[in-house]
Amino acid sequence: MKNGLSKLLNPSSVVVFGASEQEGKAGNTVAKNLLGSRMRVYGINPKGGTLFGSPIYRHLEELPEVPDLAVITLPAGLTPEAVRACAGRGIEAVIVIAGGFGEVGEEGRKLEMKLKEAIAGTKTRLLGPNTLGVLVPRLRLDTIFLPPTHLKRPGPGNIAVISQSGSGVMGALDIGAFYGVGLGAFVGLGNRLDIDENELLEYFAEDPHIAAIGLYLESFADAEKFFNICRKVTPHKPIVLVKAGRSSAGARAVALHTGSLAGSDRVTGGVLKQAGVFRAYDDEELLDTVRILARGKPLSGRRVAVLTGGGGMGVMIADYVEAKENGIAATLAKFEPLTEAKLAKMAVPYASVQNPIDLTPAASNDMYDSALEILQDDPNVDVIIPCILYHAAQREQLTERLCYWGAKGRKQLIVATMGSDLTIEAMRRMEAEGVLVFPSFWRAVKAVDVLYQRAEYLRRIGMLPEMTDSKVCTEEKGRIPKPGIPLAEDEIKMFLRERGIATPDSVVLAGGRLHGEIPFSFPVVVKLRSPDVLHKTELQGVVLNITDQEMLNKVLEKMRLRFPEQDLLVEQMESGGVEIIVGLIEDSTFGLSIMCGIGGTLAELYQDVAFRKVPINRLDADGMLGELKAHALLEGFRGTKVNREGLIELLLKVSDFGEKLRGHIEQMDLNPIILQEDKAVVVDAKLIWKNKRLGTGGIEK
Amino acid sequence: MKNGLSKLLNPSSVVVFGASEQEGKAGNTVAKNLLGSRMRVYGINPKGGTLFGSPIYRHLEELPEVPDLAVITLPAGLTPEAVRACAGRGIEAVIVIAGGFGEVGEEGRKLEMKLKEAIAGTKTRLLGPNTLGVLVPRLRLDTIFLPPTHLKRPGPGNIAVISQSGSGVMGALDIGAFYGVGLGAFVGLGNRLDIDENELLEYFAEDPHIAAIGLYLESFADAEKFFNICRKVTPHKPIVLVKAGRSSAGARAVALHTGSLAGSDRVTGGVLKQAGVFRAYDDEELLDTVRILARGKPLSGRRVAVLTGGGGMGVMIADYVEAKENGIAATLAKFEPLTEAKLAKMAVPYASVQNPIDLTPAASNDMYDSALEILQDDPNVDVIIPCILYHAAQREQLTERLCYWGAKGRKQLIVATMGSDLTIEAMRRMEAEGVLVFPSFWRAVKAVDVLYQRAEYLRRIGMLPEMTDSKVCTEEKGRIPKPGIPLAEDEIKMFLRERGIATPDSVVLAGGRLHGEIPFSFPVVVKLRSPDVLHKTELQGVVLNITDQEMLNKVLEKMRLRFPEQDLLVEQMESGGVEIIVGLIEDSTFGLSIMCGIGGTLAELYQDVAFRKVPINRLDADGMLGELKAHALLEGFRGTKVNREGLIELLLKVSDFGEKLRGHIEQMDLNPIILQEDKAVVVDAKLIWKNKRLGTGGIEK
Repeated sequence: MKNGLSKLLNPSSVVVFGASEQEGKAGNTVAKNLLGSRMRVYGINPKGGTLFGSPIYRHLEELPEVPDLAVITLPAGLTPEAVRACAGRGIEAVIVIAGGFGEVGEEGRKLEMKLKEAIAGTKTRLLGPNTLGVLVPRLRLDTIFLPPTHLKRPGPGNIAVISQSGSGVMGALDIGAFYGVGLGAFVGLGNRLDIDENELLEYFAEDPHIAAIGLYLESFADAEKFFNICRKVTPHKPIVLVKAGRSSAGARAVALHTGSLAGSDRVTGGVLKQAGVFRAYDDEELLDTVRILARGKPLSGRRVAVLTGGGGMGVMIADYVEAKENGIAATLAKFEPLTEAKLAKMAVPYASVQNPIDLTPAASNDMYDSALEILQDDPNVDVIIPCILYHAAQREQLTERLCYWGAKGRKQLIVATMGSDLTIEAMRRMEAEGVLVFPSFWRAVKAVDVLYQRAEYLRRIGMLPEMTDSKVCTEEKGRIPKPGIPLAEDEIKMFLRERGIATPDSVVLAGGRLHGEIPFSFPVVVKLRSPDVLHKTELQGVVLNITDQEMLNKVLEKMRLRFPEQDLLVEQMESGGVEIIVGLIEDSTFGLSIMCGIGGTLAELYQDVAFRKVPINRLDADGMLGELKAHALLEGFRGTKVNREGLIELLLKVSDFGEKLRGHIEQMDLNPIILQEDKAVVVDAKLIWKNKRLGTGGIEK
Repeated sequence: MKNGLSKLLNPSSVVVFGASEQEGKAGNTVAKNLLGSRMRVYGINPKGGTLFGSPIYRHLEELPEVPDLAVITLPAGLTPEAVRACAGRGIEAVIVIAGGFGEVGEEGRKLEMKLKEAIAGTKTRLLGPNTLGVLVPRLRLDTIFLPPTHLKRPGPGNIAVISQSGSGVMGALDIGAFYGVGLGAFVGLGNRLDIDENELLEYFAEDPHIAAIGLYLESFADAEKFFNICRKVTPHKPIVLVKAGRSSAGARAVALHTGSLAGSDRVTGGVLKQAGVFRAYDDEELLDTVRILARGKPLSGRRVAVLTGGGGMGVMIADYVEAKENGIAATLAKFEPLTEAKLAKMAVPYASVQNPIDLTPAASNDMYDSALEILQDDPNVDVIIPCILYHAAQREQLTERLCYWGAKGRKQLIVATMGSDLTIEAMRRMEAEGVLVFPSFWRAVKAVDVLYQRAEYLRRIGMLPEMTDSKVCTEEKGRIPKPGIPLAEDEIKMFLRERGIATPDSVVLAGGRLHGEIPFSFPVVVKLRSPDVLHKTELQGVVLNITDQEMLNKVLEKMRLRFPEQDLLVEQMESGGVEIIVGLIEDSTFGLSIMCGIGGTLAELYQDVAFRKVPINRLDADGMLGELKAHALLEGFRGTKVNREGLIELLLKVSDFGEKLRGHIEQMDLNPIILQEDKAVVVDAKLIWKNKRLGTGGIEK
């Protein structure tokens, strides 16, 4: 495949440095693992000896061929020399397993530099150091140094897992393998000296054996690149990410609202949505989500049929399906009368044939099978959750039928179960047949939501095919301010106005003095005009709701006393409508990002805001609004009429404004924006340049 | 114990109806199970025969004694006669296992009535029918008809589980037993013909072997009684409840806001908090929560020390600890310098000794042990989460040390792990020693929150010892309206005012005509006054913000044209402050309930409301306010000053008003209430009597 990782992930021959027959050594475990494959396997050890019957070579030069892959199981100190030898011999892929490099401090970092030097200028690519290695069960490619007694190996499957941490995914892989969850490929990035997640993403995006990709990352090798690759890949192949370290970023000290609402993780959340990436919060959820997406069909609806043999579990699952809190807020399918009639005909007389179906503990395996067949024909059903307990009856035959309907049925099947030995055995059987099965009611119901979100995403990008390129609103007209020179509120607004964003009529009174009449109607607002003052309200620098000339004169007099010789700003007062906040912020990971929230104070009280990476397109803007908890306010809640489309336009324009000033803006607040039936008016605006505080105003002419 | 269930749960002798040596029969399984106990076990079968060496009796009369307990494994049809025989012989506890009664329709209901008649007037108590039976591992009392090959039996423990459904808890018990989770007692309620959850709660409340009680219920035998028992028990012994069927209650059709915000599950949520009951949403969470509470110490703080041997899992756990979304919003402990110095001294040089501690994969078991010892002394640590993976090294010794520190340590220990065989083995060992251990990072972190919530609850009721009795505000003065007679807004307000609740100054204009001047100052509001009109605003029956006499005259003229000869209400206008909604609603389960929310429209947009059962005390009212997502608005958010104490008083008075009209009120809305620095003023009030719509006003003089 194009980026040259096929030697790493699909080698024909492999050499193990440090190969040994001595139990417990990494070189023994790795060699033993690889000998089970169809690859040509060579061992190297300066001590020589034999490896399960074959001679161990002392030097790389002695090998009869140049192997595709080298696995180096030597201690850290001996590693650079071995890598140099590999590069010299033209080996294209090297895995360095040992720890003791960058992660252990200065000495280690020096050693790591030597690895880097060893491959510099060669065609050798390096995975690690400090990596758990790679695992491709289909090929029996297994370079993991932990013996299978300690870490079970999954069988073949169609998901790829890329992890920056061994411990971050080890437990889930082990228990996953225990339940029979299959794996297409695992790659441990380790210290990520050379090969990174972005290349691997591109590789697996084109790998026909892989249907979905999961990642565990604590940091991005290149966040911009990651975003662009994901945006390209997710329409074709789903990606799921655990981004660990979400709490450690901490709050910003900067005073604007956008900053106080951001926190690095909120931006991450928005950007991942923008790129169509699913998010998980631990390795168990990662494995669940990626295997749901690899196996399940995207669900255009969430009308769930629940099929049980006992009331209790059916009720709990129905609750999870329907509830908004602790649930997915989907719906229980309402069956056709014909469906209920057919169910009643084949079930025991006292079975409940309404949804959730309770076939009662007396139900035979054939009755379950019939019910599954009947449900295939109901047009009101999108997905079936059979909840099967293995405690009361012999259910082996039922498991076979579940495998059949999982593979051949027209409706998506998601099996929920719970229990020990018999249950685990049944799960393994279903896993082997690719049936979606979960040992947890909640995890089964969550799967419905994942498949629905996937369909929603595909539907949305299908509606707007331009989504996948990064073309966005490119408003060319209008000046942009000179970065670094502080701007007064009216100056910021002037730039916005030139780009087609509405602001109130206003007039600046030099030294606070009004000559003649204001050129617009009452009511008006008077504000202190100073690029030095970020928070005017706290200094009593704002007076609202001035209804006539007499009142205005009095206010101006008072303001002149309070702020002698300062400029004042008189603006027409906007009121009514819905208050919106829009902001820009430079995120430490994703760069310039845009925020939108509803409701002034309430955006903060309820933390009801959405973030995306700049630039955004129309779909992104629409997605931001849909994500707000109070989005109903934009969709005619209680008869409010607001210009939702105008707000989308405004977001695109602000994104474009930010894009043109990329690298210079620290934060910008447009707060509030008054959104009415016919317009969206920016009532207050604040801008902080990077590394600058406010000073005297200045405009590039 | 006092309520006579000891014969059911601690019998000295037991007789099995339908006992048999034939494999697969319920009577065989139950007899075999019981023969493992120290009880005297008798079998009855009209066919006679032997039971593992002992003779089977043909008639109850032949037994050498009156057994404490009878387990009836006969088919449903034969059951009433057997129960009658037991009652006749004076057996005090009978378990009826068979299904085929009330749950299967009319015929079954008739059969169930026969059971009822059989025990009527006798001292015989009946569990079931249609029950999974009882299980007390400590006594090897086991009447479960499923063989242990299908449903594993837990070992002895200190939690009691009461379940209305077999299938609702079977899976969790089975997988729990697989992991070694112990059980004090299990009781299946089945059809709950006689013995119900309330008696069992009272029994286990006094049972010294039980430290915490979990319930799975789909309905309450008596909700009022359940509430009162829980309120009495929870200060001494924790209770956890899965209330299944939370989504099915559906929304109400009634037009008031309180109704649209309620939904039966919101009321349930509030009432359970009021009674100090923990809530779980499936059987796995039920078992987790009840065992956390049975074994863990309540945590007065949530400063968590995380101890790992690898970065990844430490970071994910730290995220779950600190994050507000997908986390518990607690804090990572900040260690004393001495702690870090001691950790650094014993760990490998490149270990990270800040929290989360990463001892690295190179850490020995002794290092983990030392770290656990060192952390005991840090005053900044409330709880320790060691995250242990069993994949990389021999950790048996570490498991023993975890058991030691779990039992002897001064800090609460919660072990997180994940994996298959070795992990499961270690978990079983820890479970046997009573260590809190979870095969999931998230479930381990959630345990911290459960123990913290428990301490919070105990602290709050400790502060206000009157919490446990139901004494509440008993405002005696003030009339109450005559139930059923519709009230106009000003009439409702008059009653509220008499009870010390503030309302705006107002005057009623008969026929809409004003004679002379209004007896209070502008601005004022004019409203249509009619008990026939529930939603005045929709009919343009409200005009706000009338600033002077001239404007008032014009408005009155217009209103008289719009509503000829109707009475009008003029009120002084209240503004500023925070808008509050308070309501009363008759809940189908818990009866009269009170609601409080912040923010008019926003209460609905964000569904930000809290419910409690009427009557409430001061602690309940305080808890309601603290539960609101926007509670910061009541606590000086952005410098707002509001009379939180006044709102608590108002809630107590409304509760008292409702209590006096219990059984008559369907819904009441006080919305909005304007909450200011010095007062809480009810600006609008609506009341719907049970089974009545609005009509003409009437007041009991």
